[in-house]
Amino acid sequence: MVPPGKPSTAPGARRGDVRADVVVLGGGVTGAACAWRLAQRGSRVVLVDPDETAGASRAAAGMLAPVSELHHGEEDLLALCLRAAGGFAGYAAEVAAASGLGTGYRASGTLAVALDAGDRARLARVREVQQALGLEVEALTGRQCRRAEPFLDPAVCGGSLVRGDHQVDPRRLLAGLLTAAERAGVRRVRARGEVVVRDGRAAGVRLPDGSRDGDLPVDRPADLPADVVVLATGARAQRHVPVRPVKGQVARLRMPAGEHVLQRTVRGLVRDREVYLVPREDGELVVGATTEERGFDERVTAGAVHDLLRDAQALVPAVAELELVEVLARCRPGSPDNLPLIGFGGVPGLVLATGQYRNGVLLSGVTADAVAALVHGGDVVPEVAACDPGRFGSPRAAREEVLVP
Amino acid sequence: MVPPGKPSTAPGARRGDVRADVVVLGGGVTGAACAWRLAQRGSRVVLVDPDETAGASRAAAGMLAPVSELHHGEEDLLALCLRAAGGFAGYAAEVAAASGLGTGYRASGTLAVALDAGDRARLARVREVQQALGLEVEALTGRQCRRAEPFLDPAVCGGSLVRGDHQVDPRRLLAGLLTAAERAGVRRVRARGEVVVRDGRAAGVRLPDGSRDGDLPVDRPADLPADVVVLATGARAQRHVPVRPVKGQVARLRMPAGEHVLQRTVRGLVRDREVYLVPREDGELVVGATTEERGFDERVTAGAVHDLLRDAQALVPAVAELELVEVLARCRPGSPDNLPLIGFGGVPGLVLATGQYRNGVLLSGVTADAVAALVHGGDVVPEVAACDPGRFGSPRAAREEVLVP
Repeated sequence: MVPPGKPSTAPGARRGDVRADVVVLGGGVTGAACAWRLAQRGSRVVLVDPDETAGASRAAAGMLAPVSELHHGEEDLLALCLRAAGGFAGYAAEVAAASGLGTGYRASGTLAVALDAGDRARLARVREVQQALGLEVEALTGRQCRRAEPFLDPAVCGGSLVRGDHQVDPRRLLAGLLTAAERAGVRRVRARGEVVVRDGRAAGVRLPDGSRDGDLPVDRPADLPADVVVLATGARAQRHVPVRPVKGQVARLRMPAGEHVLQRTVRGLVRDREVYLVPREDGELVVGATTEERGFDERVTAGAVHDLLRDAQALVPAVAELELVEVLARCRPGSPDNLPLIGFGGVPGLVLATGQYRNGVLLSGVTADAVAALVHGGDVVPEVAACDPGRFGSPRAAREEVLVP
Repeated sequence: MVPPGKPSTAPGARRGDVRADVVVLGGGVTGAACAWRLAQRGSRVVLVDPDETAGASRAAAGMLAPVSELHHGEEDLLALCLRAAGGFAGYAAEVAAASGLGTGYRASGTLAVALDAGDRARLARVREVQQALGLEVEALTGRQCRRAEPFLDPAVCGGSLVRGDHQVDPRRLLAGLLTAAERAGVRRVRARGEVVVRDGRAAGVRLPDGSRDGDLPVDRPADLPADVVVLATGARAQRHVPVRPVKGQVARLRMPAGEHVLQRTVRGLVRDREVYLVPREDGELVVGATTEERGFDERVTAGAVHDLLRDAQALVPAVAELELVEVLARCRPGSPDNLPLIGFGGVPGLVLATGQYRNGVLLSGVTADAVAALVHGGDVVPEVAACDPGRFGSPRAAREEVLVP
């Protein structure tokens, strides 16, 4: 609702060389998509992040899986994710066209498998819920699972084929979004910014002393005055909005050229534990992920890596021979009801775009569309309107002068 | 036997700016120690390695363990390793004094433990052999093991305490050796060199086009003429001497400050598999190591990392909570009889210093002493004299013009 291009009149704000209409804090897939969409609508946008590729987007597996990820009682989240998944192919194509870079989008479906009889019973119960909601899912025998994926262990005793749950490569998607954003005129500042609130509204972003600037000259200590600040810092927003870090650890393996052990995403129940394996066309195989409530902790632990590799090998024994390329841990932003926070929050001029939990990559496009509509005017689809942060009351620090996201 | 300082007269050798008496190929702990000892004796030494810290020394755990590492029928190797272990404290102190850098030498002993009754029986048989050879080793009950190391699993049912098997930090030792070598006048060239053989003798080292030089100006393609070439390239020497690469994979964990889960090296038999855990004073905990015959292959595999972490956790459950900092794979140089190759080899002027297999760090000091004695004159101790490469006949490529190690 803030007209683009209107100069800020916040008293006392120090000016850099560049006037921004919108500053986006956080350059993962969500922030980069928001910056791009806002710039396409004509805003002068500055994207602030100390290292765009270092956040939770770096660890994400890129499953676009509203059906496989369904949890009982989360119908609002299901509707949101189905909306996002339905538009993802077009969104990915648009990113690719705007950036000249591929996104690794792959419409290859998902196979959920069960290792023992208990796992099979649990999978059947999930399938009943999925089918009751009208979702497309197909029961397979163990033999049918192995026909689809011959490297599965002989112990696999049943599965669910979800033809509509696809995948994208989050690192490539993010690179494409950042390039598309820059081509649309977004300027990047490599620093960890803080939201400045003055006279009861968001007035811009303060950069700490010693921050590395990107292509933008800034004074130190510098403010980036702006009409709107978009907070897309994921779990780092926890100090001021009701999100919490949920640690996830993943391992990245490499399949030899021409010998890909899997053709599609495989999600497994391994004696009541969950594991997934996401194979990319370039040979990468992502194995994930833990779900740990430990506060903001991004240390990789021996036990988590052991468990991931153990369960992945239980499903696909050939995993043992694959190269282990990388292990890492990042924190997802979890919200109290597992729905994201997308919308104006707390003070005028502040837009929240966080709380996506396990669905940040999938939701990045619909989130950015909604943020652009909120700033420039336009319809917010009802599935995203349900994510209005107002459902939790005001953000905690709305009255402080400086929010530290 | 070659007097230092005598200029090379090999016909056709191209000259760089610097005349070397000795070129040492390979800058791991063995090559760096040889270069240092030779320079101390007055040789002008050039050390050639594309990246000294990237070889097998990088993965080594640094166990100084002649007693724990004893294998039946390897009495020559035992004698060599005991000689090296007896002198190691003095050697480490000398490196530290010459470099001003610590080596992480730690006289903390080794505890070998057994997880099940079969493991305990195997450990007892090994102990009988050790004691029959007059080695100092002490039988412990499971309870005594846990009293020494309280984080051991309750299932640990017996052990052997080897008070004389200590440890050093190979990365710190190598950094100290390289600094000591430079302070003694050794010049370093960062390139992968090739031995040049002319008129039936080693004439120097050829550097490939495009090699990165260190502090030494060289022509391209450049020869470093020298009277003596020391071949210390570990498993990379396989093309021309009878060594083979034996892959080892290790994991590096980190113990929290003030909460070290182990006080000394723990070697375990875990249902007939071997694993070791080496705790450093700075909090690093090295878990190793696989022994794989796969040719020259330095890929980390999912299965190996899984197995190491599984067995380490079986001995010390708290390992699950430790940070996993690094995984890596390197190739040890194995010889046909597990004894190293130390001595003149094949052609005059060529000295071999490879084939150390699992004992490269432990043997680096005695190897360097022997190489210096061979070049400058002096006694080679009998334990090292047993490592004369002549026991395998001439190296394979002695008649070729260029050896590619």
